Order: sequence, then structure tokens, then C-alpha cells
Amino acid sequence: MTLNPADDAFAETLAAQLPEGTLRRAEPRHLEEPRGRWTGVSEWVALPRDTDEVATILRACNAARVGVVPLGGGTGLVGGQVAPEGTPAPLLLSLERMSAVRSVHPEENVLIAEAGAVLADVQAAAREVDRLFALSLASEGTARIGGLLATNAGGVNVLRYGNARDQVLGIEAVLPDGSVLRGLKRLRKDNTGYDLRNLLIGAEGTLGVITAASLRLAAVPAAQGTALMVVESPEAALALLAMARSQIGEGISAFELMSRTGFDFLAETLPEVRQPWDEPPEWCVLIELGLARGLDPAEALETLFAEALEAGLVRDGMVAQSDTQRGEFWAMRERMPEANRLVGAISSHDISLPLGAVAAFIERGAPRLAEIGEFRINAFGHLGDGNLHYNVFPPRGGRREDHVSQREAIKRTVHDLVHEMEGSVSAEHGVGRLKVEDLERYGDPARLAAMRAIKAALDPAGIMNPGAVLRREAG
Amino acid sequence: MTLNPADDAFAETLAAQLPEGTLRRAEPRHLEEPRGRWTGVSEWVALPRDTDEVATILRACNAARVGVVPLGGGTGLVGGQVAPEGTPAPLLLSLERMSAVRSVHPEENVLIAEAGAVLADVQAAAREVDRLFALSLASEGTARIGGLLATNAGGVNVLRYGNARDQVLGIEAVLPDGSVLRGLKRLRKDNTGYDLRNLLIGAEGTLGVITAASLRLAAVPAAQGTALMVVESPEAALALLAMARSQIGEGISAFELMSRTGFDFLAETLPEVRQPWDEPPEWCVLIELGLARGLDPAEALETLFAEALEAGLVRDGMVAQSDTQRGEFWAMRERMPEANRLVGAISSHDISLPLGAVAAFIERGAPRLAEIGEFRINAFGHLGDGNLHYNVFPPRGGRREDHVSQREAIKRTVHDLVHEMEGSVSAEHGVGRLKVEDLERYGDPARLAAMRAIKAALDPAGIMNPGAVLRREAG
Repeated sequence: MTLNPADDAFAETLAAQLPEGTLRRAEPRHLEEPRGRWTGVSEWVALPRDTDEVATILRACNAARVGVVPLGGGTGLVGGQVAPEGTPAPLLLSLERMSAVRSVHPEENVLIAEAGAVLADVQAAAREVDRLFALSLASEGTARIGGLLATNAGGVNVLRYGNARDQVLGIEAVLPDGSVLRGLKRLRKDNTGYDLRNLLIGAEGTLGVITAASLRLAAVPAAQGTALMVVESPEAALALLAMARSQIGEGISAFELMSRTGFDFLAETLPEVRQPWDEPPEWCVLIELGLARGLDPAEALETLFAEALEAGLVRDGMVAQSDTQRGEFWAMRERMPEANRLVGAISSHDISLPLGAVAAFIERGAPRLAEIGEFRINAFGHLGDGNLHYNVFPPRGGRREDHVSQREAIKRTVHDLVHEMEGSVSAEHGVGRLKVEDLERYGDPARLAAMRAIKAALDPAGIMNPGAVLRREAG
Repeated sequence: MTLNPADDAFAETLAAQLPEGTLRRAEPRHLEEPRGRWTGVSEWVALPRDTDEVATILRACNAARVGVVPLGGGTGLVGGQVAPEGTPAPLLLSLERMSAVRSVHPEENVLIAEAGAVLADVQAAAREVDRLFALSLASEGTARIGGLLATNAGGVNVLRYGNARDQVLGIEAVLPDGSVLRGLKRLRKDNTGYDLRNLLIGAEGTLGVITAASLRLAAVPAAQGTALMVVESPEAALALLAMARSQIGEGISAFELMSRTGFDFLAETLPEVRQPWDEPPEWCVLIELGLARGLDPAEALETLFAEALEAGLVRDGMVAQSDTQRGEFWAMRERMPEANRLVGAISSHDISLPLGAVAAFIERGAPRLAEIGEFRINAFGHLGDGNLHYNVFPPRGGRREDHVSQREAIKRTVHDLVHEMEGSVSAEHGVGRLKVEDLERYGDPARLAAMRAIKAALDPAGIMNPGAVLRREAG
């Protein structure tokens, strides 16, 4: 079934059904994605101000068989937000004008936000009532709730609070036929039928458009503590995590791995990011605790460090002595993706592994890649979740342009090893357009068949984010 | 599309494809459900020993258009496990011989269990490696993992650890066409496509059969504390919960409401359940804490009580001084359903409400029911989750049989009020066969349409648990 383009004629018809100014010419910012792999071909963007307008738009697109690409903050890393050359230009549907926090219910630990609300604003609205909205990631100043849910975003607090989907009690969404799923309940328990909420969360806009969500808030931990600990190896880091868990239980909010390569990249490209050592360590973890009343995080971190030192797991460590120092520790982790972009990766991978396999993966990955050529590897990320950002760079002095021909082989090598070790080739970024082939290669055939059946059932015309997640069948 | 019965001819054909003894005549225990509302009409039960046998069975049923009702421990309260008169007798598929704990990964906090594993056995397997499997409910000695996941069971630890679905990292399942979804990954993060795991969890066996699950374990809290606190009202109980949360944060494992009516029922029907007072209180909460190393639960409970007393929320309280006493406190809560059954409810309701609406619901419910007749109401349950078991009984000395004609009106009144107050008419028990009409009445039409589309896409012949959750369309 071929889609039709969102051309001027379609735009004119649609504009007549919407308030003035809702339909506009797409601007360059609507057609870009952070990695610069693709440029969108869309000519028109719709900027609805409420759910009914979203419904009107989808109904019109469905009737005219015009594709729709939902747009949040545009920070996605797998091209879910752009429809490149080769697709009949779809309509862009930006949620940016639906950015309200509709209501806050501190006594219920619930907040209801529209899809266009920026994550940092939602965090701030929770803080205002002395609550925590636990989703936190580097792009939180730009990323919007709708996109974060559509991609089931991860981030630094997953270890303790779960992924984006774990923060959601209910959603409002518009389905491809323009019908509105009204599921903004503020309930902790509701077993009345199929879990459409979780089906739409993580579907990357291919089954419908999330327009608002009822979100779970948490108590703000009474006291926070942050430390850097220099570990002997990734294996030692994992043993340190197990030790921390048995000592501190659920109080560990973040457990992030960083390595020498990453620190060198920071020093090269972002010298203003302060590093607390003369010689960067080979491996280091950033640990953050949020503890209940009556417990002292600094003391807990020092007890952990002492026991880990005795066990030979760590060789150095420092506990942040101020908010400034905490900020400096986190800046190293949070600006790592920027440093990576400045150095220029040949191939970037967002992988997860069973915790017990992470160290072995790091050990086995380097020699396999060395068979292809000489590279620098920056493996870092959410170790507590078994989630590594495993990025491969040219050797010192090399340029990524000279390694383009090796990209496919690198990616294949990394992903094959992940698959062998029962991991995932997309831990938190999603499939988008970048990993459609990977999904076909590594995905369970029964699962893919079921996904296709569901897509056909809910979006028979195939208008929703065409080409993302599932390949469009030749029409 | 009419289904065919699993008659002797079908059984003979299917038996030939399976090891001897896999297909048997159904026994009475396979045809009952705890509330005695329905009796199953099935004549044959299949008892597969592995996933391939389950696949063989579903493939054969799908080809012959024979219905299949999956059976776990049979403890479900909404008739999801029986196909009564009016259905062409379906094949029962009991998972009881697939009860292995396939593997335990303490270093990853993961356990892989087959669908037939009894919950108490899974809890024990976790305890053996010093971990906690957090799902806990009254029927844990009988209920099996497959049924617990199919119904997204709740229980007493949801407040802290979430529902059944929150305990699951991955599932293995057989789809209606006999294909096997192999999703037993031990990953915390995996964003590769639609969330079929959560779609099958809570689908009550209408989309496929879960055969095994990879389950999340938690750290065993370092110290546990349990208290009963006599509160002035449900509203005071909720204020106490808010106070407890701000003092103790995530350390609250359970927060259960009980009332005078319930204590009277226990005294009448189960006098061996010890009650720690002469005169039962009007309202009382059972609080359980599980705290990290360095914190003293008894101290935390006493601090909470002191502050709550000063705020006028509580009037009496006692902290369990021994495991025996803890057991006594819990026995009152856990044997409440048994006492209810012995008294004989006219109508039982498993409802949830936004936390902020629970107290108002209790206040408004009684006068509305009084318009129908004179009743006793036992409202109790998982207050921390906004989940009440709201059961309506004849007046003292009355018999449920004499009130049968009022049952529909009672149910309608309760459910209408729940719906008005944005709650759910099935918080944790599911829809089964009991609440199909409620789902049609109160469910969001867009959601129901999407559910039907998904059912038709994944189970086009409609063989899976026919008549549960969604009404079978006349064929």
C-alpha cells in the first residue's frame, strides 16, 4: 500500500480543518537529527495545541494515506524523528505546543504532563512540590515527554527507578484512525484488559501518538552522596556494584562506568570539563546514593570504599564534598557524548548484556575489532543496568572519514558478539530507522511476526512513522 | 467463527502427537473456581512437560479451531480459568508439570522459572540465594507463575515492588499459531521493538500461553518491622501513609487497611486467628517496613507513631515484638478473604481509586448502598496502592441467598461510583469471565476497539481462552 506525500494540496485541505497557524512549512530544525546521518524530506509540519487537533490531523492523514512522523525534542539517536529520501514526504507532527503540566497531585505522587513538556520542566514541577520525577538523561533540557515515552528512554536513574515506562501510570494517545485512547488514570493498579499503555510506550510513534501521560513521582531522598571510585577492571566494577547492593540495598541511584579513553577524549575536546586527577585512571565508576532519613551517604560511601579496598576492587576514590564537586563529577559523565561527537565515532553502539556477561564482553570485544583494524574504544555508561555505550573511534590522529568502509564490519562484529552473549543491540535508544535491519537480523522471528500483525491491526494504512522500527513492505 | 469442542475424536488425534499421558480426562479440580460461580465443561486436559509440547497443542487446536483454556494454580477470582456452559468444551492446558526453576543468577538478581512453578517455591528459591522475589499474596502456596503473570497479580508488596509485571524481565510464550516467542532475556534494558511481554502479561491467556519467565529479584531488606496502628478514619490512614513516606521513603513494604467489620468476621468464623485487642478498632492499618543496613525498623515505627499521635491520626498502636507476633498481625490480613467466604458476600469488588479519592469513596459508598437495602460492608486491602477489596454482606443474621436479587444493583452501584471517581473496577484480579460486561460498560471505547483488533490479529481463530476478557462475537 503506497503512501501519498503531504504535499501542498494535502496541506491546504488539512489547514482548513485546523486553527490558523497550526500547519506551517517545515523548518530546517524539524528535519535534522543529532548524528547528522539523515535529513528529513517533509515539507509541512503540524503544531497542534490540543488532543482534538491531533485527532483531526491523524484522521485526515489516515483518510488520505499520508504518513505522519511525530516530533518531540528531536534528540533521538536512531533517526526515529526523520523521514529521509525514499519516502513520500510525510507530515511532521510536532507536539511542542502541547507542553503543559496539566496537574500535579503531590499527595498521590502523580503528575500529568502533555507530550510536548520538556523533561527538565517536568522535573522542576515535581521539585516544586518536594517530589522527584526520576527520569534523568543528558538531553533533559531538550527532550520532551512524548518522545521519551515513545522511545522508552533510559538514562542515569534506571538502576533505581526503572526506564521511562516504569514512570508511567497512564497515557492519553491518538490512534491512527483518529480515535482517542483516554487512559490518564492516576491508578497504581488497573487490571482491566490489555496493556495498551506499554504497547504504545516504546513503539516509537509507529502505532499512535502519545499526547499526555500520568506520571509517577517518587520521594526525594533525604540525603544524596556522590563518589568516584577508581576500579581495577570492569569485572571489579561489577563486584563493587554487588558489594554496594548488599550494603546499601535500594539506595543506589546511579552506577556509571567510565574509562581512560573517555577521559582522554574529554581532555582533548572539552578541556573546560574539570578532571580530578593528573593521570586519568583506566576504569572508574561514578556512584550516586540517595538515602533515607537517618543515614549518612558520605559514611556509606566511605564504608563501601574501605571494604572494596580490602577486597582489592578499588585503588582510589573520592567523595564529593560539595554540590560544585558533585556537579564536576557528573559533568564528566554527562558531557561524554559531546566529547565523543567531537572526536567522531566510526560506529556507536547502545548495547545491553546480562550483568554477568558485561566484563567478558568488554574483554572479548577489543580483540575481535582488532581483526578489522586499529581503533580506540570508548565503553562507558549505565553499568548497573548492564547497558554500555560502546563506541568505536579511529586511532589517534585518524579521521572517521577514512574508516567509513569499515563501519558495517565494526557494527556487525559488535552486534554479533552482543547477540551471542544474549544481549540487546538497542538497550535504550530504540530501533528508529538506524536499527531496522538489526531487528530483522537478530530479532526473534515469532516476535517480529507478532509485531507486524499488531502494526497491521492498529495502523492498517501504515501511516504512523513509516519506515521506523518495521520496514515498510513494498506496496 | 464457531469453535469446535475438544471432544474424544480431537483428543485422540492430538494424543497421537504427544507423549503418552499428556492428554487426560479432566478431573473435578480442573473444572472449579474458588468462588463457586461456574463449573467448567471441558472433558480433556493436556499436561505438557515442555514448551515444544505446548506449541504442538496450540498448533493442533488452532488448526482444528478448538478453544484452549490455560490453567495455573486455579486461584483466580474472576473465572478466567473455567469455560462454563455455553461454550463448545475447550481443551484445558495445565502448566502444572512445567514447574521447574530453570536457573538462578544471584549476581544478576534474576531467576528463570517455568509457568507452572508455584509462587511459594519461587520465593523459596530466591531466599536460598539470599534474595527476595517480591510478589506475595494470600494464595502463594497454590498460585503458579504463569497464572500470576497472565493476570498481572498484585498482592501485599505492590506499594514497594510493583505488580507482577514489574517483576518480569522477559517471557517465553507460545502464540496461538504454535510459534514460540523466545524472550527470556536477563536484561534490564532492551528497546528493540514492541513490548509484547507486557501485552501478554495481563492478557489472561487470551493472546497466548506464557511458558516461562525471567524474573527480577530484589535485595532482602536488612531488617524488617511490622506494626498495627489504630487510625481515626480511612482519611487518617492516608495521611499516615503520606507521613510514613516522607519519613521512611521507599522502606515501606506494605500498608494494609482493615476495619471493624473484618475483625468481627474473623472473630465469628475463624476464632483461632488471634486478635490483639478486646474491642476491635473501627479502622486499623498494618504497616511493614524493610529497611537498609544501619536503620532500626522498630525505632522508625515508633517515631512515626509518635508524630502521628501528635497529629491526631492514630489512637493506638503496637509494634510486633517477635516473628510470632508479626505472623499474628499478618494472619488477620491474610485470612480475611477466608473469613469473608465463610460469612458469604452478596457481592465482592476489587477496585482501585486515585489515592486522593479513597477516603471519599468509602464515605460515599455506604449511603448509596443503603438505598438498596441493609448491608454490612467489609472494605479492606492494599490502601497504599489505592486498592480496596470492597465486599458487601447481608446484615447480621441474614443469608446471602436471600439477597441474590440485589446483587446486580449492588455491583452496579459500587462500580458506577468507582467509575465516577476515576477508578478501576478490577484493580488486581483481572477481567476473566466475571467482568466482561463491566469492561464493555466502563471501558474506553477506543481502548476496547484496539484490544479487539489485537486479539483478531494475534488469534484470528479465537481459540485462546474464549469468552475471557473479550466477548466472543456471535459466529
